[in-house]
Amino acid sequence: MQIKDLGEFGVIDLLTRMVIDWRAGSGNSQSFSFNLTVDNGDDTAAWSPGPSGTGRVNELFTTDTMVEGVHFTRETTPWLDLGWKSLASNISDVASMGGLPTYALVTLGLPSETEVSDLESLYKGMLQISNDYGLAIVGGDMVRSPVVFITVALTGVMRGQPMVRTGARPGDLVAVTGHLGSSGGGLKLMLERTSEAGEAADFLRESHRRPRPAVAVGQSLVESGITTAMDVSDGMADDLSKLCRASGVSGKIFTDRLPVHPFLRDWFPEGCVDLALGGGEDYVLLFTGPPAKVNHVVASLSGGAAVVGEISVGTPGQITVVDALGNEVAASNRGWDHFGPAQD
Amino acid sequence: MQIKDLGEFGVIDLLTRMVIDWRAGSGNSQSFSFNLTVDNGDDTAAWSPGPSGTGRVNELFTTDTMVEGVHFTRETTPWLDLGWKSLASNISDVASMGGLPTYALVTLGLPSETEVSDLESLYKGMLQISNDYGLAIVGGDMVRSPVVFITVALTGVMRGQPMVRTGARPGDLVAVTGHLGSSGGGLKLMLERTSEAGEAADFLRESHRRPRPAVAVGQSLVESGITTAMDVSDGMADDLSKLCRASGVSGKIFTDRLPVHPFLRDWFPEGCVDLALGGGEDYVLLFTGPPAKVNHVVASLSGGAAVVGEISVGTPGQITVVDALGNEVAASNRGWDHFGPAQD
Repeated sequence: MQIKDLGEFGVIDLLTRMVIDWRAGSGNSQSFSFNLTVDNGDDTAAWSPGPSGTGRVNELFTTDTMVEGVHFTRETTPWLDLGWKSLASNISDVASMGGLPTYALVTLGLPSETEVSDLESLYKGMLQISNDYGLAIVGGDMVRSPVVFITVALTGVMRGQPMVRTGARPGDLVAVTGHLGSSGGGLKLMLERTSEAGEAADFLRESHRRPRPAVAVGQSLVESGITTAMDVSDGMADDLSKLCRASGVSGKIFTDRLPVHPFLRDWFPEGCVDLALGGGEDYVLLFTGPPAKVNHVVASLSGGAAVVGEISVGTPGQITVVDALGNEVAASNRGWDHFGPAQD
Repeated sequence: MQIKDLGEFGVIDLLTRMVIDWRAGSGNSQSFSFNLTVDNGDDTAAWSPGPSGTGRVNELFTTDTMVEGVHFTRETTPWLDLGWKSLASNISDVASMGGLPTYALVTLGLPSETEVSDLESLYKGMLQISNDYGLAIVGGDMVRSPVVFITVALTGVMRGQPMVRTGARPGDLVAVTGHLGSSGGGLKLMLERTSEAGEAADFLRESHRRPRPAVAVGQSLVESGITTAMDVSDGMADDLSKLCRASGVSGKIFTDRLPVHPFLRDWFPEGCVDLALGGGEDYVLLFTGPPAKVNHVVASLSGGAAVVGEISVGTPGQITVVDALGNEVAASNRGWDHFGPAQD
């Protein structure tokens, strides 16, 4: 059997089980013992440092990769933006726990023919977002490779308990911390009409090229007592499905509640709902909790935060989309499975 | 200009300068500030955790990548060994500072046609060495890629100051903590005579397939007051050159002092010195210090530890090889430059 037959979830389940089953002991004996607070199965791992592991500080550790031809093309993502985005996806994983990003290592796989000036642009993009978010690039690795790939490993730190994917319960509300679909709209615009100018087009392209992870918002969610969250990186329907799967519940999304930026609606009056459901790379946070708490938190947030759905009993991971007329349809897999058969 | 014209050192120098020059401020303001004890330019970064950063504990952070066709082929490295080795190189980077490995994230770039059973073998290899060295795999990322690549990011912890590459001084002795060339001999054996059996052949192949990073030895070096070290991953001459370059000094290696295992000498009586100088992937540690201290430390170590050279004033990074008759030759680049023109 090949991994494309097993699919992404199947492969991840298999490897996660192996890692947990095979793990021996509790660390390096006297010198060091594991104090994991978030283990395999989330986007970010977390542990309590120190001998006791009882402190309220958690250290975070995450990694994310972009491969040419799979996650980006040089036509729609210039090197400068590639640098920004390769760190943004990792910062967003730390933000989704409620943490601050701290130190990053950058691994570059590059063909020997790569232009030095392109490499400089890539690093400029990484350093711009590093400075904006107060993290330091402390090293990395560089290897020859027939295709460009960029892997970033990022540590983070936080006070309190990291938010995780496993806490959604039937009756909870589902909310997002900002507008959905703008990044997907920007990509669509670049693919369809490369030269359009104006405030709305610039906003959409900027949303795709320079996403801003929700670090401050993540911290405020933790302070407000939210315990279940993740970031919207693959698309709202797909990411909510992952969260529901991890929590053993089903979810509903009401399309007329999806926060769509006016600029996105102007450009794509027909397609904006699909972009909000499946566009990906919005890097807002998605969170769940008891209705009173979620409503209260959403009211305190600005920039498009909205209650968009609810959690229910049902097949784990199954998402139902409810349109403005009340029609219910099962969400197709609008995100993408890295290894499974292609879907539209 | 393309990166192959600039070469590995040129590219690394350029990026390191950019990272340091462009770094703004000192971290996330009130919440977090950088306390780096080892910054860009070494194999592993290190920092003192906590608000003061004055503790004697250092946290370590390193990453290393293997790319199919560049660092390994499936003919000489089965999946099980690939798993072991992909973690071994990272553990060795932590060992070279004097640290203990703690948590790992694994990024896999894989073609969709990868067999699930091969993936299981890969993880078995990683879990075997993880358990042997008391570290935990806590997550990772998996992406579709036309070539197999494996990137591991690893954290570590240590008491005391990490050993670095920058402290070699003229008059220091150069020592290694174990036999050199066995891994290269094992590879040569596999490439030339795949079916040879017997204790010596098994030992050499095992040295190549299952290298054992020097974690305990690294800790004892720190306890003995050694402050300058790195691991031998690219080959003794090449790695000493890197250490000398970082320290602004030259070095000499005496070929008749290189610790060569009897099994390697038996198999390759002619080639064993070249293998010891340039074979790579031995994962012993290379360290320098004042003669009395280095002699004392070497006497306390078993398993092939030996004084093999000395540090002198001269062109930074220039290595002279002195043979048994006293003839001196400049060491050619026996390691390899990832992006520069091919050398023999």
